[in-house]
Amino acid sequence: MTKTPIQIFRTVQQVRQWRHQCLLRQETVGFVPTMGALHKGHCHLVGQSLKETHRTVVSIFVNPSQFAPHEDLDAYPRTLERDLATLQTSFSGKGVDAVFVPKVSEMYPSGIVLDVHKQVGAFVTVHGCSEQLEGAQRPAFFRGVATVVAKLLNVVSPTKVYFGQKDAQQCVVIKNMVKDLLFDTEVSVLPTLREENGLAMSSRNEYLSPETKDQCAIIYKGLCAGQAAYQTQKESSQGPVSSNLILEEIRRVYSKMPSDWEVEYIAISHPETLADLEEVDPKVGATVSTAVRVPKKEGGVARLIDNVQL
Amino acid sequence: MTKTPIQIFRTVQQVRQWRHQCLLRQETVGFVPTMGALHKGHCHLVGQSLKETHRTVVSIFVNPSQFAPHEDLDAYPRTLERDLATLQTSFSGKGVDAVFVPKVSEMYPSGIVLDVHKQVGAFVTVHGCSEQLEGAQRPAFFRGVATVVAKLLNVVSPTKVYFGQKDAQQCVVIKNMVKDLLFDTEVSVLPTLREENGLAMSSRNEYLSPETKDQCAIIYKGLCAGQAAYQTQKESSQGPVSSNLILEEIRRVYSKMPSDWEVEYIAISHPETLADLEEVDPKVGATVSTAVRVPKKEGGVARLIDNVQL
Repeated sequence: MTKTPIQIFRTVQQVRQWRHQCLLRQETVGFVPTMGALHKGHCHLVGQSLKETHRTVVSIFVNPSQFAPHEDLDAYPRTLERDLATLQTSFSGKGVDAVFVPKVSEMYPSGIVLDVHKQVGAFVTVHGCSEQLEGAQRPAFFRGVATVVAKLLNVVSPTKVYFGQKDAQQCVVIKNMVKDLLFDTEVSVLPTLREENGLAMSSRNEYLSPETKDQCAIIYKGLCAGQAAYQTQKESSQGPVSSNLILEEIRRVYSKMPSDWEVEYIAISHPETLADLEEVDPKVGATVSTAVRVPKKEGGVARLIDNVQL
Repeated sequence: MTKTPIQIFRTVQQVRQWRHQCLLRQETVGFVPTMGALHKGHCHLVGQSLKETHRTVVSIFVNPSQFAPHEDLDAYPRTLERDLATLQTSFSGKGVDAVFVPKVSEMYPSGIVLDVHKQVGAFVTVHGCSEQLEGAQRPAFFRGVATVVAKLLNVVSPTKVYFGQKDAQQCVVIKNMVKDLLFDTEVSVLPTLREENGLAMSSRNEYLSPETKDQCAIIYKGLCAGQAAYQTQKESSQGPVSSNLILEEIRRVYSKMPSDWEVEYIAISHPETLADLEEVDPKVGATVSTAVRVPKKEGGVARLIDNVQL
């Protein structure tokens, strides 16, 4: 079966016109915002959108405002041709309708510089869940994420927008933003897709040598050990479980990491507010998350994040 | 002619349903956001919306997040019955279609406290034009304004949204927010409406005694003197005009204010960025704005603002 080629939109105006037609036809629209370098995790989100909505649009935009000046904005993998081919060929039956690939000036009409103190224009901050965990190391990161997602939601007006659980804090920030700013969209969070060895799929995995990738299995293995310890304790105590007990189990696994790796944090947090938890109430659950700094194949350090739900 | 009563919406969902019907009928929607205590200035905005769009919706919501803890949130005039009567009776021919009167919990689903350091949830900040003038005295004011307008735009999705030039800085902040966050709406700014003596119409004028109101003519008179000095100088020099020359003229008038009044600032600013200008280029123009603290009839102080364009 020959497929209709995916429409490529470069401007806000083009997306709006397309969206308006969907609206007049009363079609629902699913939206998957990405920074490109698409992998199976992204395709899983797209596949879900194809199942649940009439029309699916994917955006590919490496968002400058979520990178600090010392971070990897320039090095971030940009693979547009491959990404478009992936979207064109990965889905049997109904395919992706449109891809939005804006220039930076289209998304930041007032311009954007990486030094946060010199930035002008409108930004969205979600207070209360942006400052801890990833936000502690990257103070303007979630402001950048929330801002670009707000812009994209205003352009696409999706019925449903899809995110991966791998970026757990991002999901919490976006859910709160959508709720608080009264965006008319439903946020759908899908489970993390993993490599065979358990490593969470991420565009930044491209930075890793095959050997490091293999070793990275330990990140998820540790989280699973914590999860198992929680389950055992929960069943025997029939009440709240001490976070320290879970953390000890994860640290025991992580003690076997290569000596030049660095665990930035392991945290046990409230699933909706991301407040630090001293104990986990089984009625509430928790998010166990970690960030680990591992060597890149070409020198330098890659930050990998992962999480599991209790 | 008997008029259809205006529909009153209390929830976001009700507005969305109404808006969706307009959309399917391909009707344009004009929106006038207000904090109530409606006066002729508001009615002028509504009248313009009635002329320019198919449907008009007015919101009445005293927005807590733009008040500091020491400001007049509790005292701010709340006159819903009178406001609804005003909207029902002020327009001959086509009238207002809907009024949105949400509760605070509807607009702030994560709650809202006045202490800005304790606030949680999503907020919109417009850097570069929020910090000076009104923002210098009221550091979180424009964050509150931008945030509530972002929410309201997401609820109403207006074709056009109307503001009064009296709140000059608010207009600049909102225009920048709409541009930067890619809201699909047109911002229309209409000239300031004035009392017979030149005092800019404002809900806060209700705080003033008739005698103070009379004396307040001097605020606009000073700005007009500055404007006249600019015109004269521009014509004679055929080039940029020194801001000091304009400011001196205004200060000369303001020196005759009652001794217990306080001029908080007089500023000459770039009309789009609100950057302070040392001279006014006739090709660019300027906004001349002022804030004056005058005694309320029941004790305490009212802050009045006004501006003219050069």
